[in-house]
Amino acid sequence: MTTLIKGGTVVSATGADPAEVLIDGEQIEAVLRPGSDIAAAAEQGAEVVDATGRLVVPGGVDVHTHMELPFGGTFASDTFETGTRAAAWGGTTTIVDFAVQTYGENVRECLDAWMAKAEGNCAIDYGFHMIIGGVDNDALKEMDLLVNEGITSFKLFMAYPGVMLSDDGQILRAMQQAAGNGGLIMMHAENGLAIDVLAEQAFERGEISPVNHGYVRRKELESEATHRAVQLAKVGAAPLYIVHLSASEALEQVAIARDGGMNVFAETCPQYLHFSLEEHLDRPGFEGAGYVCSTPLRSRAEGHQDDLWRGLRTNDLAVVSTDHCPFCMKEQKELGLNDFRAIPNGIGGVEHRMDMIYQGVVTGEIGLARWVELCATTPARMMGLYPRKGIIAPGSDADVVIYDPDKQWTISVDNHHMNMDYSAYEGVGVTGHVDTVFSRGRKVIDGGRYLGRAGDGRYLPRGLSQYLM
Amino acid sequence: MTTLIKGGTVVSATGADPAEVLIDGEQIEAVLRPGSDIAAAAEQGAEVVDATGRLVVPGGVDVHTHMELPFGGTFASDTFETGTRAAAWGGTTTIVDFAVQTYGENVRECLDAWMAKAEGNCAIDYGFHMIIGGVDNDALKEMDLLVNEGITSFKLFMAYPGVMLSDDGQILRAMQQAAGNGGLIMMHAENGLAIDVLAEQAFERGEISPVNHGYVRRKELESEATHRAVQLAKVGAAPLYIVHLSASEALEQVAIARDGGMNVFAETCPQYLHFSLEEHLDRPGFEGAGYVCSTPLRSRAEGHQDDLWRGLRTNDLAVVSTDHCPFCMKEQKELGLNDFRAIPNGIGGVEHRMDMIYQGVVTGEIGLARWVELCATTPARMMGLYPRKGIIAPGSDADVVIYDPDKQWTISVDNHHMNMDYSAYEGVGVTGHVDTVFSRGRKVIDGGRYLGRAGDGRYLPRGLSQYLM
Amino acid sequence: MTTLIKGGTVVSATGADPAEVLIDGEQIEAVLRPGSDIAAAAEQGAEVVDATGRLVVPGGVDVHTHMELPFGGTFASDTFETGTRAAAWGGTTTIVDFAVQTYGENVRECLDAWMAKAEGNCAIDYGFHMIIGGVDNDALKEMDLLVNEGITSFKLFMAYPGVMLSDDGQILRAMQQAAGNGGLIMMHAENGLAIDVLAEQAFERGEISPVNHGYVRRKELESEATHRAVQLAKVGAAPLYIVHLSASEALEQVAIARDGGMNVFAETCPQYLHFSLEEHLDRPGFEGAGYVCSTPLRSRAEGHQDDLWRGLRTNDLAVVSTDHCPFCMKEQKELGLNDFRAIPNGIGGVEHRMDMIYQGVVTGEIGLARWVELCATTPARMMGLYPRKGIIAPGSDADVVIYDPDKQWTISVDNHHMNMDYSAYEGVGVTGHVDTVFSRGRKVIDGGRYLGRAGDGRYLPRGLSQYLM
Amino acid sequence: MTTLIKGGTVVSATGADPAEVLIDGEQIEAVLRPGSDIAAAAEQGAEVVDATGRLVVPGGVDVHTHMELPFGGTFASDTFETGTRAAAWGGTTTIVDFAVQTYGENVRECLDAWMAKAEGNCAIDYGFHMIIGGVDNDALKEMDLLVNEGITSFKLFMAYPGVMLSDDGQILRAMQQAAGNGGLIMMHAENGLAIDVLAEQAFERGEISPVNHGYVRRKELESEATHRAVQLAKVGAAPLYIVHLSASEALEQVAIARDGGMNVFAETCPQYLHFSLEEHLDRPGFEGAGYVCSTPLRSRAEGHQDDLWRGLRTNDLAVVSTDHCPFCMKEQKELGLNDFRAIPNGIGGVEHRMDMIYQGVVTGEIGLARWVELCATTPARMMGLYPRKGIIAPGSDADVVIYDPDKQWTISVDNHHMNMDYSAYEGVGVTGHVDTVFSRGRKVIDGGRYLGRAGDGRYLPRGLSQYLM
Repeated sequence: MTTLIKGGTVVSATGADPAEVLIDGEQIEAVLRPGSDIAAAAEQGAEVVDATGRLVVPGGVDVHTHMELPFGGTFASDTFETGTRAAAWGGTTTIVDFAVQTYGENVRECLDAWMAKAEGNCAIDYGFHMIIGGVDNDALKEMDLLVNEGITSFKLFMAYPGVMLSDDGQILRAMQQAAGNGGLIMMHAENGLAIDVLAEQAFERGEISPVNHGYVRRKELESEATHRAVQLAKVGAAPLYIVHLSASEALEQVAIARDGGMNVFAETCPQYLHFSLEEHLDRPGFEGAGYVCSTPLRSRAEGHQDDLWRGLRTNDLAVVSTDHCPFCMKEQKELGLNDFRAIPNGIGGVEHRMDMIYQGVVTGEIGLARWVELCATTPARMMGLYPRKGIIAPGSDADVVIYDPDKQWTISVDNHHMNMDYSAYEGVGVTGHVDTVFSRGRKVIDGGRYLGRAGDGRYLPRGLSQYLM
Repeated sequence: MTTLIKGGTVVSATGADPAEVLIDGEQIEAVLRPGSDIAAAAEQGAEVVDATGRLVVPGGVDVHTHMELPFGGTFASDTFETGTRAAAWGGTTTIVDFAVQTYGENVRECLDAWMAKAEGNCAIDYGFHMIIGGVDNDALKEMDLLVNEGITSFKLFMAYPGVMLSDDGQILRAMQQAAGNGGLIMMHAENGLAIDVLAEQAFERGEISPVNHGYVRRKELESEATHRAVQLAKVGAAPLYIVHLSASEALEQVAIARDGGMNVFAETCPQYLHFSLEEHLDRPGFEGAGYVCSTPLRSRAEGHQDDLWRGLRTNDLAVVSTDHCPFCMKEQKELGLNDFRAIPNGIGGVEHRMDMIYQGVVTGEIGLARWVELCATTPARMMGLYPRKGIIAPGSDADVVIYDPDKQWTISVDNHHMNMDYSAYEGVGVTGHVDTVFSRGRKVIDGGRYLGRAGDGRYLPRGLSQYLM
Repeated sequence: MTTLIKGGTVVSATGADPAEVLIDGEQIEAVLRPGSDIAAAAEQGAEVVDATGRLVVPGGVDVHTHMELPFGGTFASDTFETGTRAAAWGGTTTIVDFAVQTYGENVRECLDAWMAKAEGNCAIDYGFHMIIGGVDNDALKEMDLLVNEGITSFKLFMAYPGVMLSDDGQILRAMQQAAGNGGLIMMHAENGLAIDVLAEQAFERGEISPVNHGYVRRKELESEATHRAVQLAKVGAAPLYIVHLSASEALEQVAIARDGGMNVFAETCPQYLHFSLEEHLDRPGFEGAGYVCSTPLRSRAEGHQDDLWRGLRTNDLAVVSTDHCPFCMKEQKELGLNDFRAIPNGIGGVEHRMDMIYQGVVTGEIGLARWVELCATTPARMMGLYPRKGIIAPGSDADVVIYDPDKQWTISVDNHHMNMDYSAYEGVGVTGHVDTVFSRGRKVIDGGRYLGRAGDGRYLPRGLSQYLM
Repeated sequence: MTTLIKGGTVVSATGADPAEVLIDGEQIEAVLRPGSDIAAAAEQGAEVVDATGRLVVPGGVDVHTHMELPFGGTFASDTFETGTRAAAWGGTTTIVDFAVQTYGENVRECLDAWMAKAEGNCAIDYGFHMIIGGVDNDALKEMDLLVNEGITSFKLFMAYPGVMLSDDGQILRAMQQAAGNGGLIMMHAENGLAIDVLAEQAFERGEISPVNHGYVRRKELESEATHRAVQLAKVGAAPLYIVHLSASEALEQVAIARDGGMNVFAETCPQYLHFSLEEHLDRPGFEGAGYVCSTPLRSRAEGHQDDLWRGLRTNDLAVVSTDHCPFCMKEQKELGLNDFRAIPNGIGGVEHRMDMIYQGVVTGEIGLARWVELCATTPARMMGLYPRKGIIAPGSDADVVIYDPDKQWTISVDNHHMNMDYSAYEGVGVTGHVDTVFSRGRKVIDGGRYLGRAGDGRYLPRGLSQYLM
């Protein structure tokens, strides 16, 4: 049986126009002119979904999530089951999560462990990047194999010394490897060695509250690392993707690299666009702990948020992901009650990305086409998933979101679906709402109900990044 | 009756994938998954066009042509009839030409005169920008009316003092007007007052040959004017579109403006990517006259050509147009035999744009999707023609090109279709070839034959630029 | 008879150290180590001036004054007699004023007229720049002659259309001429054509008060003109000196040019460092008229003042001059009571430069050596007066100021010596005070008394700028 | 008895003018106007040195030498005795050498050892910087003590992992310490971790010849480290001095920092201005080993040398030092015959600095005043030695060089005085020659004879850098 979505405005990366979408099984069969003979014919025998007054957009692609991530003695509170379900509620139909290898571990075994965590549990399709915490000869060789198997991107850390940090020699080696195998190097760009000095000094001065997390992770140490990563990528002749960029100064470094024609890309996240150090991380008591993430929220007085919106327009920021890494306040964030350094780093937001970036459309920061490009099309192209994901086109997976552009509502821990005991977005008013979500042709969200099922989401081996020219 | 193009790879601004395209009358009815039931059904009763091994691309949109332009005592040698026919041969199905008002003339009357030249003569659809050579109160008021009538862009000149040049006060006034009415200011950015000093000095020193045209129109005087136009646009709060950018230094100014979030856009042309001052403008005897255009061809030793290709990748150059302005050597270019200043400025190329930019795909400078974006999608969006033009999508005009990606051939005055007695591209080898062209559903080029008809091309009133966010 | 200044700290452009200064007649004979035999011998028969606890600095060199300048139907209120006397009170012993040629006038006749105004009237030594308001063949030829006669710098205007403005072709010609004869082009860099559009529009909207002078002379129009002047200087292969720079954005253009190795220099003035649009130009009623000058005072909220201090440290601003151009409120500034465009442009400050820049030493913005470099040494080198002026060295003119670094006092119209009925600096508290001033060996200021005499100041034919490498 | 140098042109950082210099004992007593009564009186009883036709310049100050430096299993071939004698021959009368502490060593003990090496052996005055190879709590505390004792600058390394390299946390700590005690951080800015990866890879590919030293020490890895050092200095609120800068890209980073008002300074060395990778490091056989130093010589085709000369003009390069670190070819450079990584890094040049920079005066790159500023005045100010050193002024040490501006000669191992078995400058033609050198009033070089004595040079405790504003 087929499904015909009619009456809506289909949004692509280049525009928003009336069209009808025909789904057959798991794929999109056709995109049709409303009122055409062929559209009328297609309607015969099809389930017709009325999208009048609605936007019909490709399912969101969130290329930066951390389900069940071990961090600082605890685990991110969303499992692949709860996390992907929440994603679906928010109009995201694909995630790319991170399998994690740390120093001394076997890359392949780590990947297998993460595959096992996800398998049979996901509500939507998923893929993996590989975190290489220990760059050595074995890991480098393994990268080549992984690329062939659909793990085509590798994340390195310039932060977290002793845990995740790769030194500049290791980074260069990994970049050279990626230059050879076509993989994409993703970088957490903060100078962790310098940050740890400042953090220790702050702690020793008795500055223990959450906001100090933001003070010690200085913007200069993000832009420094960004510049360094760019130069190493130039030497290594490899493309580079900067994750969770939050500082204007880091954005400037990306812009310089891109103006020079380098294959350097960057993502930011909704929290960096909507939250700030003063208004959120510096909340009284321990409330700011709910906003501890790395890179940190930046000062609104300094204008980072406006600059990031500008970066989304200029394409120096090409992707919006969430860096979804949820921790509950109880027993998790509270680990750092007496030492901001012990607060698990992360904000849960996989459910809110499509809505929060749509607010930029509402306020005129970006247009509809750019919304879809940032949240679906470019992430899919960047991570080798296009055109299977990221676009409404014949032959693509039928991952489709019917979006109400006008509905007004308020986010709360009481109405979100992530496994968290608070919401960083508590009380945030939103215009726009996900009404219906198709994942490979199946309705998983409709009329305020979750119709999906753990295990329906499939693993996605990915191709090489298609955004490198 | 319907037409089904099957077997080909449909290229959009975001990718290239197999799909079938159904045309009914003048419009695209549907885009279909090959092998789907609905595609099979559509084939019934349709004329089937086999595009196996071919690219199926939106018809090209050339937003900078000058048919029959009066210049220096003569006229551009292509009429709207010959010029649009040549465009069709080259896979371009839409042009936006320039109606010209000069000092003391009535804007409306000028437009009417240009509308009359085109009407009934064009092989493909066409629209107009308005050149405002005399910015005064009447012209400013007229701009508002024109925007409502589909003339939504206005070109000003910082060059050609006494003929076209607007001074900075006039430019600012026109920009303010555009800020109010939604129009787009297009700018010929060269410091004409300074250039004329250098040109006169060169002539007085006896330096009369064509290459001096390039020497006196110094790159610093293009970048200067570009910077000035940007600053005036900032003061006037208006978007800005720089035409025929050729110098690296001007590109740098555009990049700075864009990094800062300004609505500043730029186009370049095939001649600036493929030709150079040393190799073409400086040819012996008077042969260089065939390469005299403004802005001029730039030095290859200085690397401008490479920088322009890079700009096409970074999107600091968002559009490729031709600035098609053909003059014959005989009786036209020859006017400047004894004084390079008297050589009519212009190169004919409306026929070669799609092919010449496709060479960038062949050599790896850009990808297929970017080719289509630069030559069709973005020009259509920029000039208020999207989605009617610039994309293969249901509801769009059926302007479709079937392109052979592999055929090799050589351009010559003997096989081109422009009304010129020479070809600037003589002897240039090309990979890729326009096989079939549909203009609003009608085949106008097929199997090496021109099937179109003067007058089939319709005037296109345009909307506001859709690229301003 | 000789004079020996002992006990003081002699300040040069590289440091501040104890030394004794021996003057014989009009020149400095020797600089001596305190306590040395030769110093003891020199003391015999000399008038000994005790400078204990005082700084001994070269007499100030103010290279931008406008005595008796005709402007907007009136004249700057200081004559050469009153203005140079006030300069002496403030520790300035050399001025370079501007002779003015406007369109249609003969350069030589204009210079002669200005020489006549000054001759026999000055208290201190003086030279002239030549303003070329009408760049034509005659004026260009005259430039060569003037350089040989000691008028080695020429000021052009990008502002004041119809009065002073040179178009870009004229500017280029003048720069080429200077490139040939070794002269220095000084530029008033504001886009006057655009400013006049904004000014007329503001006036037509009824915005007539003084602050509108600042609003319409936008910073972008200063930086634009600065960039343009730099590019023309590059084409003309001539050095360039930007006068009275006030906007951060213009400073940035100067820095870019200088980083690139160009001979581009800039001056700022005390009013741009100490005053602001909000605090001074926007004073209630008509009081702001006292702060109308061009370029205008800039917004403190935007940080221009801090940036200018930084520019003085980085040497992107190499000179501090006053642009002394005083007008009384009565009958002069009042001409613009109902139209800010009619307010004569100018602030009187020749008397306060040394003190106001010394405030930067007091607050730590600059060091003592840099103070002397900015106010005396570099202006002298820049304008071809060094080592006759600008340094305390054997063989130099004995222009010496004994400066009390600690005295605190308050500037007022009641204690200044300029011919003005108000002081822009009214109520400004100052640390530091000019105690004694020698002009060519004669005490002209001492113990709060003026000992000089009109006519003692001599005309200074100048050499070529020595700062061009 | 006194000495009077007459007839010469005394050169300072601001100009070159006739003057007589009176020396009494170790100090300069007076600078006198030629022809003045006091000069005539001074001549009585004085030894008169005729400097007619000569330049009289302050003795050179070379703030970067490495006498007897242990490196790679050998020692720099000049002792303090031979090295300072060679310096004197070349017109340098002060050196600041480096005492070296490496990981695990006691800073104080290391300093004592270096003091002992120098004491009693030097021909000219000398001071020390301290290399901190092991930044730990003890070393940080010791820095405070050293500043009070006249060791006011500290060198860190971003290169040489496992030997000298400080990680970014250590660098930050040292910078914070310097911010507190007024010291100056000097930085070897190359990314050694990345360089070592490239070096090992090159070696493993069999690329063992000297030129590979230049290939693997890529310019991007110098500019990266420079940027990183600047950002850490911003975070640490400390001034920064980049040593031996050789790459255009690093210079650009310095310029950006300085434009922003930071206290960032840089030096370059004669070898980077006169030599290149292609012409010297890539010489056939093992000859290139004589040009192995770090940072390496850069490509002339890329234009680094021209950019460095430009940097000397713009003051983005404020100092010229030699990084004198001589090794003989025999038994020293030869250690790397089969592995470029084992070639001791360093070029001997302490004798040639004044001459080689004077060549820039000869060719018009810089002026006479700038020559003295770069080679004497600024180094002295930068390193807390001014006005004792670096200027000819009353009260300063009588370190004076009489320089013949016209003599032409050729450098050779046969006529140099450094303890090396080759000269990197072999065959280089020079215009200009050191005729006579006074060190604290004593003639040490005169008429082609060395008149000095080991041990006459005294240790110079230094003040804080005076160039920080």
